[in-house]
Amino acid sequence: MTSNAELKNGNDKFQVDSKYRGLESNVWIELNSLNDVLGNCVNLGQGFPDFQPAPAIVAELEKVCRSDPNLYAFHQYARAYGHPRLVKALAALYGKLLDRSIDPMNEVLVTGGAYGALFYTIMANVGAGDEVIIIEPYFDCYEPMVLLAGGTPRYIALKPDAVNSSASSASWCLDMDELGKLFNSKTKAIILNTPNNPLGKMFSREELTAIADLCKKFNVLVISDEVYEWLVYDHNSHIRIASLPGMWERTVTIGSAGKTFSLTGWKLGWAYGPHHLIRNLQIAHQNCTYMCQTPEQEAVAAALEVEIGRLGTEQSHFQKLTKELVGKRDEMVKAIRDAGMVPVVPQGGYFILVDWTPIESTVDLESETDQCEDIRFVKWLAKKKQLLGIPPSAFYSAEHKHFARNYIRFNFYKKTETLEKAKEILKLLQAPNQK
Amino acid sequence: MTSNAELKNGNDKFQVDSKYRGLESNVWIELNSLNDVLGNCVNLGQGFPDFQPAPAIVAELEKVCRSDPNLYAFHQYARAYGHPRLVKALAALYGKLLDRSIDPMNEVLVTGGAYGALFYTIMANVGAGDEVIIIEPYFDCYEPMVLLAGGTPRYIALKPDAVNSSASSASWCLDMDELGKLFNSKTKAIILNTPNNPLGKMFSREELTAIADLCKKFNVLVISDEVYEWLVYDHNSHIRIASLPGMWERTVTIGSAGKTFSLTGWKLGWAYGPHHLIRNLQIAHQNCTYMCQTPEQEAVAAALEVEIGRLGTEQSHFQKLTKELVGKRDEMVKAIRDAGMVPVVPQGGYFILVDWTPIESTVDLESETDQCEDIRFVKWLAKKKQLLGIPPSAFYSAEHKHFARNYIRFNFYKKTETLEKAKEILKLLQAPNQK
Ligand SMILES: Cc1ncc(COP(=O)(O)O)c(C=O)c1O
Ligand SMILES: Cc1ncc(COP(=O)(O)O)c(C=O)c1O
Repeated sequence: MTSNAELKNGNDKFQVDSKYRGLESNVWIELNSLNDVLGNCVNLGQGFPDFQPAPAIVAELEKVCRSDPNLYAFHQYARAYGHPRLVKALAALYGKLLDRSIDPMNEVLVTGGAYGALFYTIMANVGAGDEVIIIEPYFDCYEPMVLLAGGTPRYIALKPDAVNSSASSASWCLDMDELGKLFNSKTKAIILNTPNNPLGKMFSREELTAIADLCKKFNVLVISDEVYEWLVYDHNSHIRIASLPGMWERTVTIGSAGKTFSLTGWKLGWAYGPHHLIRNLQIAHQNCTYMCQTPEQEAVAAALEVEIGRLGTEQSHFQKLTKELVGKRDEMVKAIRDAGMVPVVPQGGYFILVDWTPIESTVDLESETDQCEDIRFVKWLAKKKQLLGIPPSAFYSAEHKHFARNYIRFNFYKKTETLEKAKEILKLLQAPNQK
Repeated sequence: MTSNAELKNGNDKFQVDSKYRGLESNVWIELNSLNDVLGNCVNLGQGFPDFQPAPAIVAELEKVCRSDPNLYAFHQYARAYGHPRLVKALAALYGKLLDRSIDPMNEVLVTGGAYGALFYTIMANVGAGDEVIIIEPYFDCYEPMVLLAGGTPRYIALKPDAVNSSASSASWCLDMDELGKLFNSKTKAIILNTPNNPLGKMFSREELTAIADLCKKFNVLVISDEVYEWLVYDHNSHIRIASLPGMWERTVTIGSAGKTFSLTGWKLGWAYGPHHLIRNLQIAHQNCTYMCQTPEQEAVAAALEVEIGRLGTEQSHFQKLTKELVGKRDEMVKAIRDAGMVPVVPQGGYFILVDWTPIESTVDLESETDQCEDIRFVKWLAKKKQLLGIPPSAFYSAEHKHFARNYIRFNFYKKTETLEKAKEILKLLQAPNQK
């Protein structure tokens, strides 16, 4: 029998290794547990649709599962670095978009979601003594991954340009002088996300060129998270920083089948770039999960092949998706404005940031005790009004969380019924002067 | 334009981070490229069947893909630590087998294959200064994962007991004095694999008890890789070290849907153990890929629920599988003996280790240049005889690779047609005195 003293001693020894200390909490897990507790919220939280969005692509997975002995290989191990049909489709797609030839076997890696691609890119390229520039607001995993890899994150926030009163995400900009000052000989990488989550900002050619120039000057790697590359509204166009002069050699670009085809549960992603960079990711991958699920790889490959032929046409899945989404965005923008709050109209992605402070006097922030007021607002809204959003302070470093104070993030990629329910709730959240 | 000098400088900066130095090569990727080059080998190499083995389970995945709007959630993000239905099924299954109540939400984690579970277990529990005992021959990824985590592997080899002339994998044993000497205050964990790959050895209750006693004495974690838990032949029974007195608290047990249902391409695995250990893995998981593919999780959950009800009956998938496999094993054993070579008859798993040295005088080992003779034999056999096996030196540390010299590993989980072809080739490899 183990004595209590020994057991305590035992548990001490079995605490998580120091490389993970400080990385124990995770905003999504905390927020989902809020939703679990509440149960009946209208959920505009996490980033996925609440309906089956692409039957033709689900049908590709169904095909793989038919009882046909010739299909057996789709249920067994795939090539470690990516199912050949999928890496070929990805190389063809991005080769076309970047107007260069991409080697499917050496310049593309298939991963466990874009999450997995981010993990490999950061782990394999960042180490002790390296600084990594992270643009705020940012997808929350960038920070713990940089820390786990041994690097030091350096933050810079996009800020709304005062004149434009945050009409569109385009008005949220980087101070290029501030950015320039962050670059130094220790800068290993910058993480870019366009269209950005949670803001929907799309970096313009001018902005990307200025960033690219700094990266070339300081010999810095760009980690370009482009999971929302197809969700682009109005007359914006998605610009891949890897396509700018001299940038292919120093860019790892990351995409997501889950976001591309609105099937987040398939958890397939990819990274592409020059072989000397993708090689680093391969090494990280073969020492982590080694390979990805074959059935989804085959199905996504088949779906992409179809889409490559349709790019830019009315039949394109991406065009249809955008059309569907822009309608949902506009509905939400209107409902938010009607409620007296101020939306930051997103140029891309499926999230919208909303300034809720015009209704602040009607909100009981004191009913919650969190330090960040945006979290208190989110909790109040969920508990008292049954509407779930995400507190954007989760997308800022500790030192900059106050920038998020006035905002909440909603996901508008939801079925009509859900959006209608959300609109009903928003209607009741009138600004005081509208009552 | 970048000058050559600058570019070189650039590429230097972009080399893989030092945490991965020395971990660049991978035996499977090298061997698969051998197969790619050769093309027409009879492939008894990597560990998966070359046919569709479990139509009922594939049908579960097909069900998830039916065009039914009620199924949408199976294509969207799952719970990060595991789809509720799956963790509940796993908790029920192992709860029954271990005769204890297992908390599905806190004591089970779903991962990207057993590979992913090994990665999390090792990364989250092992750090700088920690020693980890690895029993040879071992599944190759244990070593790089321990090194990546910051630990120091300490090796001990199973050795054939001379008297028994390696008739069965049971005769490969640990020298318990040697093992005892490896334990010290720096020992953090021991990695156990039963049934073992590549040997097929199943650790007996006596052996496990001796290991358990050392682990309790030195307060050491057991990482128990039991992916072949259902593939057990003759009168052997699989003993889970977590079921021994006082061991639950210090054991993480790892399983694989790919191996359990012979669908390696589904790439789902799991770990179970006490919450204080699984919590460490959760932290690693949420900072790596965050969650696993939902469709396979739902399908595996459905399949497991059926199997829990059937455990120990004739209808049990596991019983049928074992029956099928033991027949294949016995065929291969006979063919190998007929060819004058000496098989180590495996108690479990789907691999067989074969001593090829009785035919050494007929082999042109000089046609290859690798340092390890088992690799030369594998290459000779593949190139000259079109039969692909795996060199077991891949399963030994650098210092002990000579223990593998006389052996080759074959996978016998192949369709009859493939095994027939392999037998034809084996027939032509007669030992000199049989010619
Ligand atoms: C910006 C961004 N990057 C990466 C991811 C992760 O994508 P995946 O689900 O493919 O892992 C997300 C998911 O929300 C995201 O918003
Ligand atoms: C002993 C052992 N552990 C783990 C694994 C990996 O299993 P999975 O395919 O579920 O990642 C294998 C695969 O061959 C194995 O043999």
